[in-house]
Amino acid sequence: MLIVEKYGGTSVGDVDRIKNVACRIKAGVDAGHKMVVVVSARSGVTNELIARAKAITPHPDEREMDMLMTVGEQETIALTTMALHALGVPAVSRTGPRAGFTTDANHMRARVQSITGGDIHGQLDAGKVVVVAGFQGLSPEGEVTTMGRGGSDLSAIALAQGLGADLCRINTDVDGVYTADPRIVPDARKLDEIHYEEMLELASSGSKVMQSRAVEFASKFNVPFEVRSSFNDNPGTIVKEQVASMEDILVNGVAVDKNQARIGVNNLPDRPGAAAKVFRQLSDAGVMVDMIVQNLGREGRANITFTVPKDDVFKAEKALEIALAEFEGASAHTIGDIAKVSVVGLGMRSHTGVAATLFDALAEAGVNIEMITTSEIKISIGIRPEQADDAVRTAHDAFGLGED
Amino acid sequence: MLIVEKYGGTSVGDVDRIKNVACRIKAGVDAGHKMVVVVSARSGVTNELIARAKAITPHPDEREMDMLMTVGEQETIALTTMALHALGVPAVSRTGPRAGFTTDANHMRARVQSITGGDIHGQLDAGKVVVVAGFQGLSPEGEVTTMGRGGSDLSAIALAQGLGADLCRINTDVDGVYTADPRIVPDARKLDEIHYEEMLELASSGSKVMQSRAVEFASKFNVPFEVRSSFNDNPGTIVKEQVASMEDILVNGVAVDKNQARIGVNNLPDRPGAAAKVFRQLSDAGVMVDMIVQNLGREGRANITFTVPKDDVFKAEKALEIALAEFEGASAHTIGDIAKVSVVGLGMRSHTGVAATLFDALAEAGVNIEMITTSEIKISIGIRPEQADDAVRTAHDAFGLGED
Repeated sequence: MLIVEKYGGTSVGDVDRIKNVACRIKAGVDAGHKMVVVVSARSGVTNELIARAKAITPHPDEREMDMLMTVGEQETIALTTMALHALGVPAVSRTGPRAGFTTDANHMRARVQSITGGDIHGQLDAGKVVVVAGFQGLSPEGEVTTMGRGGSDLSAIALAQGLGADLCRINTDVDGVYTADPRIVPDARKLDEIHYEEMLELASSGSKVMQSRAVEFASKFNVPFEVRSSFNDNPGTIVKEQVASMEDILVNGVAVDKNQARIGVNNLPDRPGAAAKVFRQLSDAGVMVDMIVQNLGREGRANITFTVPKDDVFKAEKALEIALAEFEGASAHTIGDIAKVSVVGLGMRSHTGVAATLFDALAEAGVNIEMITTSEIKISIGIRPEQADDAVRTAHDAFGLGED
Repeated sequence: MLIVEKYGGTSVGDVDRIKNVACRIKAGVDAGHKMVVVVSARSGVTNELIARAKAITPHPDEREMDMLMTVGEQETIALTTMALHALGVPAVSRTGPRAGFTTDANHMRARVQSITGGDIHGQLDAGKVVVVAGFQGLSPEGEVTTMGRGGSDLSAIALAQGLGADLCRINTDVDGVYTADPRIVPDARKLDEIHYEEMLELASSGSKVMQSRAVEFASKFNVPFEVRSSFNDNPGTIVKEQVASMEDILVNGVAVDKNQARIGVNNLPDRPGAAAKVFRQLSDAGVMVDMIVQNLGREGRANITFTVPKDDVFKAEKALEIALAEFEGASAHTIGDIAKVSVVGLGMRSHTGVAATLFDALAEAGVNIEMITTSEIKISIGIRPEQADDAVRTAHDAFGLGED
């Protein structure tokens, strides 16, 4: 079986952890598998490199940032390969460019265009483990590029697709995907399987297992993968297209994002283009707007409330000042922190009553809902932060997600 | 003028020093020159990487060592280029492979085969400074290679040759090449010019300004270069083929190497091949034998005395144990530390009396000479280490090398 595995920065954080990773890879080789391993920079290295660049200039050139950042994974592939040799496992390292990752020329956030794998199949046939630098690629102009934070997940999934791997494993510091954060909900259950779309909705709802881009790629090219722990051999969670008895399960997980703030815009003229102008200005300023609620106010004027990450509040206030200047009487104010709790499940599509069950349960628990947004397979509510953990536990119970 | 400059690990040791290097490069640009800059890894980085590899396995694979080591310079080229940008100087970084350094496939000690310069001329014509990673190249098989310690000097000189540069500058932590170490001889004089061969003999005699390989390359391809300080703008020493009034100067410098130990081999059969066997065994063990003196002993048996670096004594003793096993009665013993003082000068070739002058002066100073070896342009003597500094001063005076 051809297996592509990924180990992140924490898993290769120091020499001893790299040796541990080598032992795990050896187990795969001993079981008769062909192994390709994608690794990240040791945790902390990327931040050190960024700090050094910022000490030189506040706005470093993006091409040179990529030249700088790619040294992190290059160190890890060499050390991991040495650790395999020390265990008597034939192995060879490959940088991203050499592994045939072609990307566009957008430095620091390049998008994958194609993956040939370079000579990886040949190396595998020669009995070697191939250790590949995640996160990096080569632009058509021959410049080294990086794919942005979390890029190694994307590297692994894209490489699994490019090589036609039988299995892709994302090794991380959690055991898999849970029905809720076990630190909040003690009887949260690890899911055996989850659909790509659910995984995406959980990621965008504050469950930090993986970056969305990697899951989107896997979904687009139908690359099933397993999320599991770097530190034990427990089975993890398989993320894939066809999930057993999908229709029977209304809700598969509850996620919470406590990092949001709520901003209100009042007395906006209720005419075409007014709201669009506000949100275009926010978007241009790089503010990530999440939940949006609009009410009609007095005299044909609209009130809009939306949430942004807490870190974006200052940027958002600046952008709104500009956007509202032309609308007389309109004003914006930051209301305060808000928590977003989301229930996610493919089963919602074909069943009604999910919202009713959720709202009833929360009402009974005394949780006041301040905002609501929904997608096809997700219901998100905005509530006061101090009620967030209670709300997660209540929703988890209401849909019977806990251990039997 | 097209200038190729090299800055070593100390010169780019931290963010502030990198900024300083950028200022110096800018001065060259402002003076209208096309600038190509070869940089090393920040001092300390190479040793950190080696320590990490050794913590994983005592004998890391050499190809993977090269993969590991090359990250050091890659970091420096990115940071140096950013520092140039911060000064408003257009610049771009190039790894060794991308700068067209082709080497053989001997990892960790690759030899340069050709230097195309890649697209460097094009970048220069576009008004950019090109910052090149020293020490690294690409084998014909497409593997990244390194050229061994001090390889950045070689990179700079080879690149100056490959690009047809008008000037090559080796910036280092000394002001140039001196007639003797100024810490030993207070009136030592900086040389304006020195011939390649003298520079080579000084390097091999303990003067640590540059690695011999880089000087050999410069000599072979006649690439004149200047050795000067990274930290001031004083003129340094030009190393070249044609040196003014060469014939008039008997001796150009006095070097000392205090890092030698003396080993004696007694009662070796005086027949062809016996000494050869001894030195082949030492060579196979990686021992660097320096001065060798042979005397005929009693009954047709030979006594040989030679020097090795102190660090090699243990290896040498092991090798001699094996080599002498078949020669009955032969024995080896380590005599103790010895210092080597060398006087170097092209003028020796055509003049007699240099040795006599040296020996007379040393005798008068009470320095006892224990070993002597000579080459065409060098006389080296082995003496007791505690007399080394005295001997250097005496020789320096005897040939009138001091400041006027």
